[in-house]
Amino acid sequence: MPFHVGSEVGRLRQVIVHRPGLEMHRLTPDNKDQYLFDEILWVEKAQEEHDHFVEVMEQRGIVVHHFDQLLRETLAVPEARRHVLEHSLDERHVGPLGAEELRSMFDGMGDDELARHLVGGITKAEVLDRIPHPQSLTIEQLDLHDAVLAPLPNHLFTRDTSAWVHGGVAVNAMHKKARRRETVHYAAIYRYHPLFADAGVRWWTEGIDDGPATAEGGDILVLGRGVVLVGLSERTTAMGVERLARALLADGEVTRVIALDMPKARAVMHLDTVMTMIDEETFTRYLGLPDLPSWTLTAGDERDGELDVVVERHAPEDMMKVIGHALGVPRLRVLAADQDPRAAAREQWDDGCNVLALEPGVVVGYERNTVTNDYLRAQGVEVLEISGSELGRGRGGPRCMSCPVERDPLG
Amino acid sequence: MPFHVGSEVGRLRQVIVHRPGLEMHRLTPDNKDQYLFDEILWVEKAQEEHDHFVEVMEQRGIVVHHFDQLLRETLAVPEARRHVLEHSLDERHVGPLGAEELRSMFDGMGDDELARHLVGGITKAEVLDRIPHPQSLTIEQLDLHDAVLAPLPNHLFTRDTSAWVHGGVAVNAMHKKARRRETVHYAAIYRYHPLFADAGVRWWTEGIDDGPATAEGGDILVLGRGVVLVGLSERTTAMGVERLARALLADGEVTRVIALDMPKARAVMHLDTVMTMIDEETFTRYLGLPDLPSWTLTAGDERDGELDVVVERHAPEDMMKVIGHALGVPRLRVLAADQDPRAAAREQWDDGCNVLALEPGVVVGYERNTVTNDYLRAQGVEVLEISGSELGRGRGGPRCMSCPVERDPLG
Amino acid sequence: MPFHVGSEVGRLRQVIVHRPGLEMHRLTPDNKDQYLFDEILWVEKAQEEHDHFVEVMEQRGIVVHHFDQLLRETLAVPEARRHVLEHSLDERHVGPLGAEELRSMFDGMGDDELARHLVGGITKAEVLDRIPHPQSLTIEQLDLHDAVLAPLPNHLFTRDTSAWVHGGVAVNAMHKKARRRETVHYAAIYRYHPLFADAGVRWWTEGIDDGPATAEGGDILVLGRGVVLVGLSERTTAMGVERLARALLADGEVTRVIALDMPKARAVMHLDTVMTMIDEETFTRYLGLPDLPSWTLTAGDERDGELDVVVERHAPEDMMKVIGHALGVPRLRVLAADQDPRAAAREQWDDGCNVLALEPGVVVGYERNTVTNDYLRAQGVEVLEISGSELGRGRGGPRCMSCPVERDPLG
Amino acid sequence: MPFHVGSEVGRLRQVIVHRPGLEMHRLTPDNKDQYLFDEILWVEKAQEEHDHFVEVMEQRGIVVHHFDQLLRETLAVPEARRHVLEHSLDERHVGPLGAEELRSMFDGMGDDELARHLVGGITKAEVLDRIPHPQSLTIEQLDLHDAVLAPLPNHLFTRDTSAWVHGGVAVNAMHKKARRRETVHYAAIYRYHPLFADAGVRWWTEGIDDGPATAEGGDILVLGRGVVLVGLSERTTAMGVERLARALLADGEVTRVIALDMPKARAVMHLDTVMTMIDEETFTRYLGLPDLPSWTLTAGDERDGELDVVVERHAPEDMMKVIGHALGVPRLRVLAADQDPRAAAREQWDDGCNVLALEPGVVVGYERNTVTNDYLRAQGVEVLEISGSELGRGRGGPRCMSCPVERDPLG
Repeated sequence: MPFHVGSEVGRLRQVIVHRPGLEMHRLTPDNKDQYLFDEILWVEKAQEEHDHFVEVMEQRGIVVHHFDQLLRETLAVPEARRHVLEHSLDERHVGPLGAEELRSMFDGMGDDELARHLVGGITKAEVLDRIPHPQSLTIEQLDLHDAVLAPLPNHLFTRDTSAWVHGGVAVNAMHKKARRRETVHYAAIYRYHPLFADAGVRWWTEGIDDGPATAEGGDILVLGRGVVLVGLSERTTAMGVERLARALLADGEVTRVIALDMPKARAVMHLDTVMTMIDEETFTRYLGLPDLPSWTLTAGDERDGELDVVVERHAPEDMMKVIGHALGVPRLRVLAADQDPRAAAREQWDDGCNVLALEPGVVVGYERNTVTNDYLRAQGVEVLEISGSELGRGRGGPRCMSCPVERDPLG
Repeated sequence: MPFHVGSEVGRLRQVIVHRPGLEMHRLTPDNKDQYLFDEILWVEKAQEEHDHFVEVMEQRGIVVHHFDQLLRETLAVPEARRHVLEHSLDERHVGPLGAEELRSMFDGMGDDELARHLVGGITKAEVLDRIPHPQSLTIEQLDLHDAVLAPLPNHLFTRDTSAWVHGGVAVNAMHKKARRRETVHYAAIYRYHPLFADAGVRWWTEGIDDGPATAEGGDILVLGRGVVLVGLSERTTAMGVERLARALLADGEVTRVIALDMPKARAVMHLDTVMTMIDEETFTRYLGLPDLPSWTLTAGDERDGELDVVVERHAPEDMMKVIGHALGVPRLRVLAADQDPRAAAREQWDDGCNVLALEPGVVVGYERNTVTNDYLRAQGVEVLEISGSELGRGRGGPRCMSCPVERDPLG
Repeated sequence: MPFHVGSEVGRLRQVIVHRPGLEMHRLTPDNKDQYLFDEILWVEKAQEEHDHFVEVMEQRGIVVHHFDQLLRETLAVPEARRHVLEHSLDERHVGPLGAEELRSMFDGMGDDELARHLVGGITKAEVLDRIPHPQSLTIEQLDLHDAVLAPLPNHLFTRDTSAWVHGGVAVNAMHKKARRRETVHYAAIYRYHPLFADAGVRWWTEGIDDGPATAEGGDILVLGRGVVLVGLSERTTAMGVERLARALLADGEVTRVIALDMPKARAVMHLDTVMTMIDEETFTRYLGLPDLPSWTLTAGDERDGELDVVVERHAPEDMMKVIGHALGVPRLRVLAADQDPRAAAREQWDDGCNVLALEPGVVVGYERNTVTNDYLRAQGVEVLEISGSELGRGRGGPRCMSCPVERDPLG
Repeated sequence: MPFHVGSEVGRLRQVIVHRPGLEMHRLTPDNKDQYLFDEILWVEKAQEEHDHFVEVMEQRGIVVHHFDQLLRETLAVPEARRHVLEHSLDERHVGPLGAEELRSMFDGMGDDELARHLVGGITKAEVLDRIPHPQSLTIEQLDLHDAVLAPLPNHLFTRDTSAWVHGGVAVNAMHKKARRRETVHYAAIYRYHPLFADAGVRWWTEGIDDGPATAEGGDILVLGRGVVLVGLSERTTAMGVERLARALLADGEVTRVIALDMPKARAVMHLDTVMTMIDEETFTRYLGLPDLPSWTLTAGDERDGELDVVVERHAPEDMMKVIGHALGVPRLRVLAADQDPRAAAREQWDDGCNVLALEPGVVVGYERNTVTNDYLRAQGVEVLEISGSELGRGRGGPRCMSCPVERDPLG
């Protein structure tokens, strides 16, 4: 099987991204917070910036899969289409009266149009163009431009919804309501898309209906050598980590899961917003991040067919030591630009730490983080810059916008 | 079967209430908002006030069932106990590593202690007294006084979690996370408690896992003569109303569901905080409530074994006319004390409108709403006063704190 | 001069309080936050509770002055009346077009009515009863029940607006806009009321227009023996403390001001919500209050007629030692009921720490804080209980509701 | 005198702008809300964008004054320097103990450095470089990177702090604390800078200490022909409008002030965020802006040397008619792109309506508002585009960033 992610920094070979589309046009000053955006994006510009991001990766020989194309091709499979429509138009979400009519309406769309509206949502006005008199209190009571099916603008951050760890994928339950339907799409892609359907993909978690045992990809770092680092964050719960860890440890290829007890706050919503890996012994780390308590989870005995998991606690001051020890690197190199703490907070906010390694020592970052980028270069890191004047308004950087499906292990 | 609720104002014969207990001691200034309380209660005083509320009803010959006793007796049924523990300690909520150990711990409790902690929750400190070294990351990462199982202080408001309509009960999915586990308890009581198990109770809705198709009892008024009035509120969604209405209309005893499009705001969280029924032609109504758009839902044809529901819209100015017409009362009497709008807002906040009719023209209200109570009396209503200096801090009045299970229809 | 406050715990002889009135009727669910109240009070009940508070003090022989009576008597002095109207109806606050007309309208009121509306505010509707067609855009654009002059419900907390330290008074600039006009009233009372006009009162600060150099009485503890303890809190700024300290130290009777660096948060808005004095060597202290950094301010040299103030910093762990040392008490006794931290937080919220000493070892507290009160009694403190079911909703206890004007020094 | 602003759309000849500098580097994720910014700016990029804005104006022959240069040159005047330092380092704001030392420190700076820190603020760390041991509790209790003097990032919006109306200037009291010190700078510039000192400038308002009678330039539209349109907004109060109107009407050149009763909300913080003038009979108007109630203020009789102002109310539906009638244009042209209301809200948020007319029918706008700009062009308007990817994050467009000091009247 070609799909395998053996590390954070080995050569990246295949990745899934999502170019922003209709869903971004749905954001308004009134609804942006509910959709987890701090700002309105200029969509055309954001698309240009995203195209450049893709170009940078393709120039390095990386195969870039586009989520929307994967979704379209998945919807061409009748069983997949049925599966997605069932989960997207569940009568608990659209009401029992109109559910069937809505499902028929969507089912009548071509794959393109369907994919577009599954991601971009559909408004009452757009429904009325197709069903003039729906017998549905749920639709009736909406305003004309309200969403009957909500848009999913956070599909931009392909990192979170599914996360590959070695030869398997965690299809993730998402913490925020605004992102829950994303999981339906990835579950369908991995199950039905020709690329994955027969590839023998193992599933670490199934995602749909797993909440609140959530674990999002931004909190999952595949350090390599059997070690996975996870953040207990605003979005990833201990319950989610337990589930993921048990599946990984039971499989055996992963031998150690280290969990970090992060502050629960939007500014540091995922571990990869404060810490990413650059090469096999180097991390970036946000200057404002204190040392964190951590736990190591390892496999214990099996009892009644279930694996016992042993949980061991470590003091905050041992945080980097625990990670280095697990990796077999006596002394990790931690890069944090020596700047005034206010400037560091500014660049962290703009995803200065959220770089994406294309290979050891080569990362993609936003050009606006000039202090961070200059510093990394001075430390010998090659930084490929992309513009994030619009993309960055979604509070996510290059790592957030990428879901590696094939990456080499540590050398 | 003795259980039947035929109206809002017919003689009340049996009711379920909940005396506040351990769960209220869990509230702190830091967590009260998350548990939907604006204030900390003085628990002993609140209990006294609640005892008086019960006394007032018992003096009128009403049989008062206590929720905690019903729950205790239900837990004595092994199947019920298993059912409750499974849903309360789901591994998605407590993590897979410690779930079994926790379930054993709870299962080792007597019915009393178990009921107490299911409602009052349990802290990490209390768990460690029983399991000194739990292998659970979920428990590990909590602070010593954090809840492993959250308390359910809103059980006080027995009105919401289940709602009887004629000979059946809607076991409700709750809108707010802080109340979701309440549904597990009522589902078990109605299914397993000797009082209900063999009484042939019909279930209009099943509650557990129904969200976001929520409908809470505070939004459901059984007007009588086959008419049910519901509020689309902050807590009751159109999807929830569709589900409830379809079940009721299919059964046939209810012939008309009227849905009111309420403002979605905490201050008017349920319909019964702004409007309640006093006798068969009289309503209280909060002066600050504007006329609302409404819809009538009636039974259509049956297709493929599913009932079609016909939805008809009415203009805001027809609101009271629509209700009167359905009840066969040409001109409803609407009581709203003629006071300055600021004073009206004050008394609405303190549940001035949230009275509980014990029989036509006889209601229980909080003594603090002096303007409202004087006004009602001047209109010929008998107002039985109870103290709400503490109870009222939970933003709920007598109607909120009562779940009628037997009440006469309109004369 | 009879007015002198020599300590926190010496025998209390004269005090100013304010019985809640019209101003409390102005609170609504919509405006309460703006007026700094978490809840709506049942005014009649609050008045009863306040009457009982007064009774408890009078039974101990304390002379209780009522703020509203002092204000009324002050307004009978023409110069005082002019002074108050000028500062209350400044054209920056009521607009230049209507200012004169409004001032005439108020000036036409008797002392009673005037005092009532200065404290209780006046609505547009109430103005239109007196001036049918005001030529004022400021009045024009209000809703009928909006305030032209805002009510001052926080006058209940007489502690804050003025604070006596030995033979002088600090007339305080208030931190929150909702309380600023309170200062105008106290400035007039101390300057013009017969009781104070010729009593040779020294003024440590002048209050009006002093913001943001604010210092509120809840943050000022006159420990005795020349030591004043102040909290740098949400409401008292370092600038305000500097001003107060310089005036006190220049005078010479106070020789040491200790400033505590408190958390800036509503829950601990003033020092006296977490710490009060019980007798000359005993303090209550909220269990959740960490040790705080502190500074000692003492008199330095005089230069160009201005006193230099020497500022010396102390580590958090020395907090109680610094206080004890200043008082000449080698080992202070600190009382904090040994309870679970959640319970402690609950009682702190309900002003468990905010007791008022009537004499050494005799304090007034709210009855609802049963754990705290029982604990204090077990430690030999006499606790006189008053009901605070309504009063306490304003987030203030007996100390907040009292402004001592005569109290004995330490023995 | 060369300074005269006779209209909104006559040829623009001289303007004041401010290129963002040190003050913008002070913004962090934690403090940005307090400084009224929704986002962090990439300062270097924002400067480039601002340079381009200036270039576009200069290419049209407009004389562009830079605020920071005006301030520097003003500070070279000893009396101005004294005036500014006194008002900026008032002991109420920096505490009496350190005020003198701080004033000396600032006074020791050259004009450049002084101007830089007056606008950019100064941190405790920067003060300690100059005064190692300040005897100041106010400085002591700050964190090392806290501001001793706050930065003023909103100086970017030169429109608001002073507003020219015909031959005079309103030096404005600012509504938000974060902007109050801006007024000190403009008061000094107009009083002491050689350009203005002897130009016979009339002052409509004095600004400093005028709050809460605030009126900000974004709410003041000099329509021409003696008509001024003002918005009663989140930032401009009726009291402020009364003061301004009385001064203007007393002077006589302005004969009519029309006040619009705007929604009080951040999204529409100033009138010019929803409505601007394009040529003498054309306005842009945000599609989401409802018709507003308005008042006309005209001169009445003089009494005791004070002008009476007559206030006349108009119904919402007459809003545009009232404006057209005042201008002598029977039928105003109102431009609002015919787009879906969500898209309109998006472009309003990004200052689509906040264009700056350089001459009749020629406006500067942000390039990101593609729908609005295309629409304006289709209506015959010449739109000069500038990039606002960073500048626009401050929630202000070209009109907000410009303070015209010379502009032709309507033809």
